[in-house]
Amino acid sequence: MLNLNLLKRLTKTTPSKIILLVMDGLGGLPIEGKTELEHASIPNLDSLVRKSICGVVDPVSPGITPGSGPAHLGLFGCDPLKYEIGRGVLEATGINFPLEKNDLAVRINFATIDKEGRITDRRAGRISTELNEKLCQKLDKISLESVKIFVRPVKEHRAVVVFRGENLSEKIAETDPQKLGALPLEPAPLSKEAETTSKIISKFVSEAKKILSPHHPANMILLRGFSKPPSLPSFSQVYHLHPAAIATYPMYKGLARLFGMEILDLKGTNIEDEIRALEENFNDYDFFFIHIKGTDSAGEDGDWKRKVQVIENVDKFIPQILKLNPDVFMVTGDHSTPSVLKSHSWHPVPLLLYSPTCRVDEVAKFSENACAKGGLGRMPAIDIMPLALAHAQKLEKYGA
Amino acid sequence: MLNLNLLKRLTKTTPSKIILLVMDGLGGLPIEGKTELEHASIPNLDSLVRKSICGVVDPVSPGITPGSGPAHLGLFGCDPLKYEIGRGVLEATGINFPLEKNDLAVRINFATIDKEGRITDRRAGRISTELNEKLCQKLDKISLESVKIFVRPVKEHRAVVVFRGENLSEKIAETDPQKLGALPLEPAPLSKEAETTSKIISKFVSEAKKILSPHHPANMILLRGFSKPPSLPSFSQVYHLHPAAIATYPMYKGLARLFGMEILDLKGTNIEDEIRALEENFNDYDFFFIHIKGTDSAGEDGDWKRKVQVIENVDKFIPQILKLNPDVFMVTGDHSTPSVLKSHSWHPVPLLLYSPTCRVDEVAKFSENACAKGGLGRMPAIDIMPLALAHAQKLEKYGA
Repeated sequence: MLNLNLLKRLTKTTPSKIILLVMDGLGGLPIEGKTELEHASIPNLDSLVRKSICGVVDPVSPGITPGSGPAHLGLFGCDPLKYEIGRGVLEATGINFPLEKNDLAVRINFATIDKEGRITDRRAGRISTELNEKLCQKLDKISLESVKIFVRPVKEHRAVVVFRGENLSEKIAETDPQKLGALPLEPAPLSKEAETTSKIISKFVSEAKKILSPHHPANMILLRGFSKPPSLPSFSQVYHLHPAAIATYPMYKGLARLFGMEILDLKGTNIEDEIRALEENFNDYDFFFIHIKGTDSAGEDGDWKRKVQVIENVDKFIPQILKLNPDVFMVTGDHSTPSVLKSHSWHPVPLLLYSPTCRVDEVAKFSENACAKGGLGRMPAIDIMPLALAHAQKLEKYGA
Repeated sequence: MLNLNLLKRLTKTTPSKIILLVMDGLGGLPIEGKTELEHASIPNLDSLVRKSICGVVDPVSPGITPGSGPAHLGLFGCDPLKYEIGRGVLEATGINFPLEKNDLAVRINFATIDKEGRITDRRAGRISTELNEKLCQKLDKISLESVKIFVRPVKEHRAVVVFRGENLSEKIAETDPQKLGALPLEPAPLSKEAETTSKIISKFVSEAKKILSPHHPANMILLRGFSKPPSLPSFSQVYHLHPAAIATYPMYKGLARLFGMEILDLKGTNIEDEIRALEENFNDYDFFFIHIKGTDSAGEDGDWKRKVQVIENVDKFIPQILKLNPDVFMVTGDHSTPSVLKSHSWHPVPLLLYSPTCRVDEVAKFSENACAKGGLGRMPAIDIMPLALAHAQKLEKYGA
């Protein structure tokens, strides 16, 4: 497998521009013989496909259904089997919290305990997000020596705490015993260097318990997913790109930020707003990651029709993107989310690569099965970035 | 990835014969809708393809444009991301210098220095190859204790020096400061075990400087690419083959020699001479690597027509090769060299494998896009040798 150090050695900065358009959960499964993509009326993508080379992409490895983290690691050229994004970091990333290198991020669940301290509800009756926000404001005021503390709401009973300080360790045991009637566990150190961190977390939990005691059913917190940001290769350092991310959901902004992308401001949350941001910033960057969330949301909801509509809606903006004259334009998904499964799946995702240097194949329709017969064949997602850099003529020859 | 030790364990010697015909830079890109290969009239290859199984080959990894070194490593079954051939070794190989195992090979650039020793031209005004030859003869006479020295001309201002001795190290700093007005750098040791070597190189440079002083503009040498031959697996030891190489260019003879191939003498430098050597030696070896240079040279020159002609010319010799009745006959390239790019490229290369045990697919034309739909799919070059050995029935079963 290609080594990122080699790519770093071979990439050079050129004026050429790359656009990676990701329809989240794009791949589907047929209902009445046709997948969502096969059913959609997409004249612009079908026209573009005839000038492109196509293939199907395994986000991680055949048979593996990825979460959003691993799926985007793959798209960005990082082996998702080698790099892992911990649960705490993913939660912080998901609310677009600006994590720093040495931060320790932890997922909080608000919970209910009885007078003896035993857990009676591990999700505090799924309190409202509004109440969650108020409680987080209180917990955010906890002040401990040697660390800065940030407590931020996520949704319902879920929140995140970030500890900022020196020498914090992620080797801490989860405090959720995963059963009712038990006492919360201690945030025990799992290795010697985690002892100081363990004490800090213990103090934080006991302060939180005091603050929350009048707020039944949310009168306790359970902690899991202690994790620090993985040292992911930044796009500027590895690929020598000046990258921008265009996304409407915080999770994807956060993931892009982990790779050192700049997050562009949007005027709204529609595809139109995303494409406008692309147009307005096209001169200032040489790599654009555009994330479309609607396809995945519709798939997760099992809403076949809506997924078709989102794809058709994206198709309308293809001419506007092509007018910018990118040197490499790729359209794909991060994984499949077939409406019939109402969840992410392991099925490969169609990929279209348009560039003056591509060997145009005979694929005449942008769909899962048509792309499987394309000139790129079947490939792992981590090959997408090297291919894009090659077609943008940003890669030097390897060896003499 | 298949391990060479496993292959070594599984291969056995049989009378069956394998021919690997490599058209250098075979893969192309379309002009007016057709690649060079698609445009060429190749009735014999098109007929052969109908009895063969086809695929497309990534020389190194998707998106990576290989030099000749890495490309041939891949063809010969060696991972080009694991083995690297240093610049000095490649230069020596390129003039077919018979390197020995412990030799230290170094690239020389003749350069111009002023009275203060500062570099005024890093290429000595690109002196003629004739002058280069004369100067190399003088430098070749330098005699130092404990090492043998060979100085050989390459072309224009480029030459190579090989040091033969015990415990020579390649961990030596380049002496080219890469800018004008600077003094040449010392060949400093980059690790402790390189100290003795560093002293030897220093002495060589100062002797060379004395000898060259009356030969302005070539009055100095700059050294780079200190390297020893990589310990590449030999064909006889790993594959248990008795291999012969048929090539007209010194570089490819040199590369084949690094793998322990015997280099066959040719009567001339035409394809005809290469095929005659194949015929005359067919009984004496069980593996033949035939290298055709013309396709790559034409591609590098951007000469679309000539590349088409070379391919058509090779096609004429296919019946003669088939008459020899090889057990496995493969036709491919080491990489693509599209005339429109005038350089090596990252595009996969078509591969045809003809053997009585192949599963004939539906490919009816030997071309990039047709082969992409072949039964072998898309594969890395390092899989070619195991496939060839298997079809030649030279591989034992793995495991019981």
